[in-house]
Amino acid sequence: MSSRPAKTEKPCLALSLGDPAGIGPEVAAKALADRGLARAAHWLVCGSPASVPKALWPALAPRAGLRWLALPDAGRWRLGRPSAASGALAAQAVRAGARLALSGQAQALVTAPLSKEALHLAGEPWPGHTEMLAQLCGLKPRQVGMLLAGGGLRVFLVTRHVSLRRALASLSPQSVAEAARLAGLGLAQRFGIQRPRLGLAALNPHAGEAGAFGDEEARVLAPALKLLRRERGFTVQGPYPADTVFVKALRGEFDAVLCLYHDQGLIPLKLLAFDSGVNVTLGLPFARTSPDHGTAFDIAGKGIADPGSMKAALRLALELSARQRGAR
Amino acid sequence: MSSRPAKTEKPCLALSLGDPAGIGPEVAAKALADRGLARAAHWLVCGSPASVPKALWPALAPRAGLRWLALPDAGRWRLGRPSAASGALAAQAVRAGARLALSGQAQALVTAPLSKEALHLAGEPWPGHTEMLAQLCGLKPRQVGMLLAGGGLRVFLVTRHVSLRRALASLSPQSVAEAARLAGLGLAQRFGIQRPRLGLAALNPHAGEAGAFGDEEARVLAPALKLLRRERGFTVQGPYPADTVFVKALRGEFDAVLCLYHDQGLIPLKLLAFDSGVNVTLGLPFARTSPDHGTAFDIAGKGIADPGSMKAALRLALELSARQRGAR
Repeated sequence: MSSRPAKTEKPCLALSLGDPAGIGPEVAAKALADRGLARAAHWLVCGSPASVPKALWPALAPRAGLRWLALPDAGRWRLGRPSAASGALAAQAVRAGARLALSGQAQALVTAPLSKEALHLAGEPWPGHTEMLAQLCGLKPRQVGMLLAGGGLRVFLVTRHVSLRRALASLSPQSVAEAARLAGLGLAQRFGIQRPRLGLAALNPHAGEAGAFGDEEARVLAPALKLLRRERGFTVQGPYPADTVFVKALRGEFDAVLCLYHDQGLIPLKLLAFDSGVNVTLGLPFARTSPDHGTAFDIAGKGIADPGSMKAALRLALELSARQRGAR
Repeated sequence: MSSRPAKTEKPCLALSLGDPAGIGPEVAAKALADRGLARAAHWLVCGSPASVPKALWPALAPRAGLRWLALPDAGRWRLGRPSAASGALAAQAVRAGARLALSGQAQALVTAPLSKEALHLAGEPWPGHTEMLAQLCGLKPRQVGMLLAGGGLRVFLVTRHVSLRRALASLSPQSVAEAARLAGLGLAQRFGIQRPRLGLAALNPHAGEAGAFGDEEARVLAPALKLLRRERGFTVQGPYPADTVFVKALRGEFDAVLCLYHDQGLIPLKLLAFDSGVNVTLGLPFARTSPDHGTAFDIAGKGIADPGSMKAALRLALELSARQRGAR
């Protein structure tokens, strides 16, 4: 117990800058220019200092809480263009950040956006951060989960970055139940919610209208709920028509909505929190957050990227790391 | 021109009460108890007077604008229970309303919700109003379209009441282009929007991420847009990721969003306008609106149904019929 840090001690949080050709370094620097945020933690910034727009350095330089894990950057990438060089730098930054979090040097990891295209060009096979972080932590993709929070809503994705057709084909009672466990236990562990209440979204219009519009509710979702009946750590209700379950969640009936495919969760989330949504990975041995937008290559370098979502990601990482430290 | 009604003359609007075992008669009566609404038109109410809750009659009786097309009701239905009797009454009410609108005795039709289950029990094969009205007007289902409006958003459904799996399988460049034409021309005709701007939602996460998450954007949506390039009456842009296209529409970039499946459009619509969304059928020879909720058998007869959506449907029908009369 003597090694327990005093409650007033600042946490150390890792921040990976994402793809240098995108808006990641810009929104990260803009967010850390916020005095309150910068001072709330020791920020371990992983990435290429050269990727941070020059105009933002004056606001960053005096921030006491900033430490760099500077990556070697041969300058072979160009703003706004995904490339092998930009993808390689982005992947290195994530690896560096994950190492810090895994070793306990950082209590949480915040990641700026990367580009799947650039990763691919760099020979990195990941469709996204979530899958990459799972592997870096020795986990299978299905052992980690993607939760998005914002606008008073939390959504958890049962399937993530695959075509809608493949998402449908991959649903099974087991995969839905497994996702529910990840969400339920993750919300309890990371967010400190006692016995989280999950709402399960249906797949078909009107939740299948008693079989008239599809059988997945009966064939997949009902058996999944049966598998989950004896869970004590959380509850799952549903399936509810997807056009009402989010309204129920907003009214406080659920702590999160289990969504069967990417857009089912992202449509309501972005509508309620376009510039402030945060992505949280559950199932990892550390807390990880990120803004819920992409690299936005089309506006990279223009100085107009909104840091709202990145700020929200930094704030939530601070909150989750504080809970973690408190629970030690 | 001499038969043209004076602009101050009240329009005649038909209102079908829907399934008597559901909340249709209740929300219709509550909405017509609104003095302003009741007086704005001659309302031709099609349905069973016995289905209107007794407690609501005192507020309805003195309303001058109300006329009944009373249907014979043997009382064989029970509140909250879809049945052959309730389904038959509901279908008769829709037929009566459609006849009034087709003959020009009514300038628009508003329909209270019906139950597909009850319709089925009554031997009526329709999955919903839209398809039923199409046939009553001698049209094919694909010649009419379902637009939903509320909360500053309009969404048009390319596929409607089918399973998500069937919706995906049924998408083709032709079906998407046909839906776009229905939406574009319908918005111009019914809503008086000059050269409506449509935003096309993508099917897959991140609009397919350049093919990594599905090929429908390249295989179906791009060819559909090509088919639409020479349209002069409206414009279509996209496909945009489904989690951003509604935000764009709310910012005023589009007059409506073309949605590829039911929940893609209904999730954002209900989130923004849970108690005030209106369903509009485009392609019919008359204006038709309805509340965007169902029969809600679980609360039928309890007196707690919210008439907000029905009021919005009546108001929009008034607005559309006024435009129709003005355009004659």
